[in-house]
Amino acid sequence: MKIGIVGYGNIGRGIEAAIKQNKDAELVAVFTRRDPATVKVATKGVPVYSVNEIEKKAKDFDILVMCGGSRSDLPKQTPEYVKYCNVIDTFDTHPKIPEHFANVDKAATASNHVALISCGWDPGLFSLNRLIGSAVLPNGVDYTFWGKGVSEGHSDAIRRIKGVKDAKEYTIPVDKALKAVRAGETPELTVRDKHVRDCYVVLEEGVNESAVEHEIKTMPDYFADYDTMVHFISQEEFDKNHKAMPHGGSVFRTGVSDNNNKSIIEFNLKLDSNPEFTASVVIAYARAVCRMAKEGQKGCKTIFDVPPAYLLDMTSEEIRKQLL
Amino acid sequence: MKIGIVGYGNIGRGIEAAIKQNKDAELVAVFTRRDPATVKVATKGVPVYSVNEIEKKAKDFDILVMCGGSRSDLPKQTPEYVKYCNVIDTFDTHPKIPEHFANVDKAATASNHVALISCGWDPGLFSLNRLIGSAVLPNGVDYTFWGKGVSEGHSDAIRRIKGVKDAKEYTIPVDKALKAVRAGETPELTVRDKHVRDCYVVLEEGVNESAVEHEIKTMPDYFADYDTMVHFISQEEFDKNHKAMPHGGSVFRTGVSDNNNKSIIEFNLKLDSNPEFTASVVIAYARAVCRMAKEGQKGCKTIFDVPPAYLLDMTSEEIRKQLL
Repeated sequence: MKIGIVGYGNIGRGIEAAIKQNKDAELVAVFTRRDPATVKVATKGVPVYSVNEIEKKAKDFDILVMCGGSRSDLPKQTPEYVKYCNVIDTFDTHPKIPEHFANVDKAATASNHVALISCGWDPGLFSLNRLIGSAVLPNGVDYTFWGKGVSEGHSDAIRRIKGVKDAKEYTIPVDKALKAVRAGETPELTVRDKHVRDCYVVLEEGVNESAVEHEIKTMPDYFADYDTMVHFISQEEFDKNHKAMPHGGSVFRTGVSDNNNKSIIEFNLKLDSNPEFTASVVIAYARAVCRMAKEGQKGCKTIFDVPPAYLLDMTSEEIRKQLL
Repeated sequence: MKIGIVGYGNIGRGIEAAIKQNKDAELVAVFTRRDPATVKVATKGVPVYSVNEIEKKAKDFDILVMCGGSRSDLPKQTPEYVKYCNVIDTFDTHPKIPEHFANVDKAATASNHVALISCGWDPGLFSLNRLIGSAVLPNGVDYTFWGKGVSEGHSDAIRRIKGVKDAKEYTIPVDKALKAVRAGETPELTVRDKHVRDCYVVLEEGVNESAVEHEIKTMPDYFADYDTMVHFISQEEFDKNHKAMPHGGSVFRTGVSDNNNKSIIEFNLKLDSNPEFTASVVIAYARAVCRMAKEGQKGCKTIFDVPPAYLLDMTSEEIRKQLL
């Protein structure tokens, strides 16, 4: 499959890395809103174009991977570009998924393309496991724990505070809660019971530490409801120890049968690089989108609509023989 | 969905228990090869019929759940009964899946029914996770660990030894191997490195313990390649401590990206009752089979062919809103 990407940030570079792992995938173009001359793509020979060229170049690729942000890029870009080609995105603003789906579905259906939105691991593989858990154990409870890992949203929120030069937030599951759930207990957990927030902050010179610490710890939605730790560090230490983007987490479903037998399902991820793993999931589902498009399907899909066999470049016979 | 079951053993009773957990499911008939008068169904008002009545009664249910054994029952029953109705089975003899699939597919296609074979957790949810792992991390290694849990096949193999009255085999993952894999190491593991086999055996009076122990430990395929422990116990102790059928295990996929970033995926099950959990998975996929049949599909399917959304009795809108 020939792949174009829009945006060459963390996810874009992750997509580029994931493509190299898949023999049937090829990166054929990078589209950017910047001046194309300023974007240097690591893979040799891949041309960089302005996003204004997408319509004209659409015949060169099978699918366009949207690598922009969920806040302002994807809500506009995905419904726009699906007019010209099949697309896949990582839209992750949970409450706005129905609206985004409706917009993309309308444009994809009208233009006879297939779009798949909200791909990755959460939303994505975690969602899939929540669905399977609730289907298999309808009389059950589920839990999602994130981390230990970097939350870009929370890091951004700290960086927006006046006087903050750089910041990284690690979401860490509370060990006691995780152990209880893993042992099959079904505790009622507040947000504070489940995760702590560990923040590493570089300040501009002369900024008051305790004022910033107070502002972080009392920030509504992001930190106020959690036990939050704040560490002020130098730019050197930050650059040395806090540039990686690890993440992961667990989805649990615990159910009890009429005969009082318990079942515990856990799906767990440990990731050195959140954007690279997200991109790996996207490439597998891009393969499925291409197949659905070839079958003549159209409209907007999610991970819930994809038969798992479509994720592999193998025949059904091979898949059954090797993997069932 | 109205459900009929064939066979009222462990899986059959598990299906009955799972149906009670699902508001949209109803047990409408039990079919047996025994004299129907000798089978007492726990759910009140459910009629018991001879398997010879399946063709005549097929209009009374949406799907027939095959609850027989993989060795001799399912290879005959599933292709036979799919002539009359939609069916689902738990056929778990891995190397014979292609043959079974072909037989069932032929009969299902000819009669315009949908069959789903090899449902449960392995084959089943474990297979699904092996597929997703290899699609998302193509440059990776996978591992399946089973247990701690009862292997019916190995318990049977011991019970077939002359002088053995009763026996239970527990498959136990080797902690060292499990920890190494969970930590992201990718060791090469022999069968002996991965699992030990722990056997509890009741002998008939006067039988020589060491002869039986030797016969178990040297049994090819089943025990010879493993570290095997054999404990001789009384029937009383056996009945008190070894009647349950717990099981579980983990599927791992560990992959490394071009940039040397590691990702570890683990899917883990801890089950008090293997047959009840297997049945819970079957009921979720039975729902999908009914939907595929309503759409006019036909032929044999596996878990790899089912769009996850089909597992729930909810609209796509509800699923996206609540679970994505």
